[in-house]
Amino acid sequence: MSKLKGSKVRVPIVLVNFKTYAEGTGKNALDLAKFCEKVSLETDTCVAVAPQFVDIVPIAEAVSIPVFSQHIDPVMYGSFTGCVLPEAVKAAGAVGTLINHSERRLKLAGIDAAIKRAREANLASLVCSNNAAVSAAVAALKPDMIAIEPPELIGTGIPVSKAKPEVVSGTVEWVKRVNSDVTVLCGAGISQGEDVAAALRLGTRGVLVASGIVKSKDPYRVLLEFTGALSEFRS
Amino acid sequence: MSKLKGSKVRVPIVLVNFKTYAEGTGKNALDLAKFCEKVSLETDTCVAVAPQFVDIVPIAEAVSIPVFSQHIDPVMYGSFTGCVLPEAVKAAGAVGTLINHSERRLKLAGIDAAIKRAREANLASLVCSNNAAVSAAVAALKPDMIAIEPPELIGTGIPVSKAKPEVVSGTVEWVKRVNSDVTVLCGAGISQGEDVAAALRLGTRGVLVASGIVKSKDPYRVLLEFTGALSEFRS
Amino acid sequence: MSKLKGSKVRVPIVLVNFKTYAEGTGKNALDLAKFCEKVSLETDTCVAVAPQFVDIVPIAEAVSIPVFSQHIDPVMYGSFTGCVLPEAVKAAGAVGTLINHSERRLKLAGIDAAIKRAREANLASLVCSNNAAVSAAVAALKPDMIAIEPPELIGTGIPVSKAKPEVVSGTVEWVKRVNSDVTVLCGAGISQGEDVAAALRLGTRGVLVASGIVKSKDPYRVLLEFTGALSEFRS
Amino acid sequence: MSKLKGSKVRVPIVLVNFKTYAEGTGKNALDLAKFCEKVSLETDTCVAVAPQFVDIVPIAEAVSIPVFSQHIDPVMYGSFTGCVLPEAVKAAGAVGTLINHSERRLKLAGIDAAIKRAREANLASLVCSNNAAVSAAVAALKPDMIAIEPPELIGTGIPVSKAKPEVVSGTVEWVKRVNSDVTVLCGAGISQGEDVAAALRLGTRGVLVASGIVKSKDPYRVLLEFTGALSEFRS
Repeated sequence: MSKLKGSKVRVPIVLVNFKTYAEGTGKNALDLAKFCEKVSLETDTCVAVAPQFVDIVPIAEAVSIPVFSQHIDPVMYGSFTGCVLPEAVKAAGAVGTLINHSERRLKLAGIDAAIKRAREANLASLVCSNNAAVSAAVAALKPDMIAIEPPELIGTGIPVSKAKPEVVSGTVEWVKRVNSDVTVLCGAGISQGEDVAAALRLGTRGVLVASGIVKSKDPYRVLLEFTGALSEFRS
Repeated sequence: MSKLKGSKVRVPIVLVNFKTYAEGTGKNALDLAKFCEKVSLETDTCVAVAPQFVDIVPIAEAVSIPVFSQHIDPVMYGSFTGCVLPEAVKAAGAVGTLINHSERRLKLAGIDAAIKRAREANLASLVCSNNAAVSAAVAALKPDMIAIEPPELIGTGIPVSKAKPEVVSGTVEWVKRVNSDVTVLCGAGISQGEDVAAALRLGTRGVLVASGIVKSKDPYRVLLEFTGALSEFRS
Repeated sequence: MSKLKGSKVRVPIVLVNFKTYAEGTGKNALDLAKFCEKVSLETDTCVAVAPQFVDIVPIAEAVSIPVFSQHIDPVMYGSFTGCVLPEAVKAAGAVGTLINHSERRLKLAGIDAAIKRAREANLASLVCSNNAAVSAAVAALKPDMIAIEPPELIGTGIPVSKAKPEVVSGTVEWVKRVNSDVTVLCGAGISQGEDVAAALRLGTRGVLVASGIVKSKDPYRVLLEFTGALSEFRS
Repeated sequence: MSKLKGSKVRVPIVLVNFKTYAEGTGKNALDLAKFCEKVSLETDTCVAVAPQFVDIVPIAEAVSIPVFSQHIDPVMYGSFTGCVLPEAVKAAGAVGTLINHSERRLKLAGIDAAIKRAREANLASLVCSNNAAVSAAVAALKPDMIAIEPPELIGTGIPVSKAKPEVVSGTVEWVKRVNSDVTVLCGAGISQGEDVAAALRLGTRGVLVASGIVKSKDPYRVLLEFTGALSEFRS
């Protein structure tokens, strides 16, 4: 596994977005994070978690795997009541952050500013995009990672790597052309180990997953499948 | 002091909004909350704090005074990445929440939904408004509290109770006419004990304050002044 | 019929929202507006139209019935590229404007400001709301009219006056209590003359309609049904 | 002069944004557009105008120079009350549109969608950006034109071509690398002929100007200066 700019975020990676699922809130979120850590340690792969804001502190205190925020606002220390300050997220124990998730889209200038603020706060930035052209656009803004997630597939169980492989490979190609330093992940509809393998074969360095793990009846088995696929593509 | 719907929130009240001030982030936020608790216990008055989302858990674990969220989103358990779920805020230890702060304005239908969601999650709701007419409008939506804060005075040190007393008394009167169950607080520019007393004399039941405490060189003295004014208006 | 503040807007009224329907765009919009004028003149009732921004000038030049804008922004003369200036809408020939339609929701402070700007530009203001409590809130902001439109019924052909009569009568009652000067209209799902009659019986002074007319196969017959219902409730 | 994809938009170009200035509203807007046409014809250069939505029809009927919309929404025919439908703008007589002006910023996915919708409606797309990285991002989305306008310079009279020439040349270079088909314009603070010349020398193909013309005491003289600079850089 290679490390991302010296942080404890390594690729290939499985990043689990807890959303606002009941199974990913409060006490459940803590249990789920501990479980992800267990699989990560057992399989020697990188499994990271993105819990809700309020759950970052207790989770970051309890586990050694990377913790991401689900969002940051491009704000500074000051008068921004109700906003998510990058420095506060960092102080809470997060090492990275999602930006522009399809459920929390930002304006273009805001994405640019959020990536810069993440860098200043020493947070790895993972920007979500909805197609290959938008991914290329994001790449020009120099985030650490991009996750390609066609919104129409999110939560469907239909993996983009199967339903629209050309969107994934197109993203990998376009992003490389614009900025080859950017790591591409694959999201939307990932629910089986073979979906992860397909995503990696298409040139991505991991997956962003939510319901596939968080709402699974047997998350242990599914996460083992996922990390098993990672192991084959270790670099 | 009278309790608000059986919660530990009592009026008259001083509610300290930490915003995203450096003095109100992370370790500083925890220290400031403990300090507010100290004054609250010493003076037997209600001092509450509204820290950033990530700081709610450590603060609610450390202090016994009421903790508010700075914002909630009108969302449910489900797929709302990057949003602030009322139930998560409650599980984190908050007992109430600001809604529609001037730095985080919501759409009208969103305020209505957020007040309902707060009630469902058993959070006291404090909706910020910018003038008497908007306060009356908010009162029709049945929040627990309204804080009147003319945005042009926020952070100025010029108290609305002095600069625009008619806005405060007008708010108290209009809100009473529309919904007499709603408690009115006064915000914007409060920095001295006499500002608090003036606000209470105009019919409000407390103050929403930020820089006046958080960025004060001598917060202990200022907070004592504030709670001293509360003591005179205890009901 | 009674006039609304001396303008040519009278109640009871049928206000036809052209949305961005193909049948309500460009040349089609002009034809539809002329047709609405024809029925208005034939039946001596008030039929008004709300076309898209670009179609206001040609329609207001061609017809004598009231023309509404679908939206205004609460902005002034100045640097607001891409915004809808109330004075520009007035100069274009409109006499009123929708505000806060469910497809173009505003922040609460924005609704307050837009109502004031409409008044300054001498435009009648019609604010859309989604339930009785929000309607009462809007009434406190003193618009000329409120249209109650539960969003879940818009475009369904299921009239709110039938599906949720208590929402309509509750709105009429609450609005009256907060501000008896405000005229209440009924929207959402109106497609037959009897829906209009039901809305008027519940205490509203007219209807806001879109697909029921614009996408009807026989708009002449439907509009005659609507205006027939108005005639029975003329004041 | 070279034509842009067969439309009547040619480069080098002076595009005059009327904003919501009183001098650019209603009757004044029509007079200003006629005046721009006069200079365009006298100097055989491309001068285009971007009036408010409601003024597009009367202006497009009165003048032969290109008319732009100040904004479009990425919507379709249907239920989008209060939105700016690309097809309606086209039917009104516009040949192009601004997208993402600093006073009307869009979300990233919205810019991507708006560019596509503009193309479908046969409108030339001019996307505004705030720095070189964002310009490169926009270039990946394949608009016809990009205007670089550091927001802090808009309306100042301090031209970006003088204050921050590296932002302009950097934009030209980055955009070329990502997508060499995209034409770059220069905005923000242009008020003299030499500012236009400087912008063209830095590799842009024209200027986006507002107050420099619309609020000038002698717009004829200023516009002649601008078009004089264009003539020297004709291709």
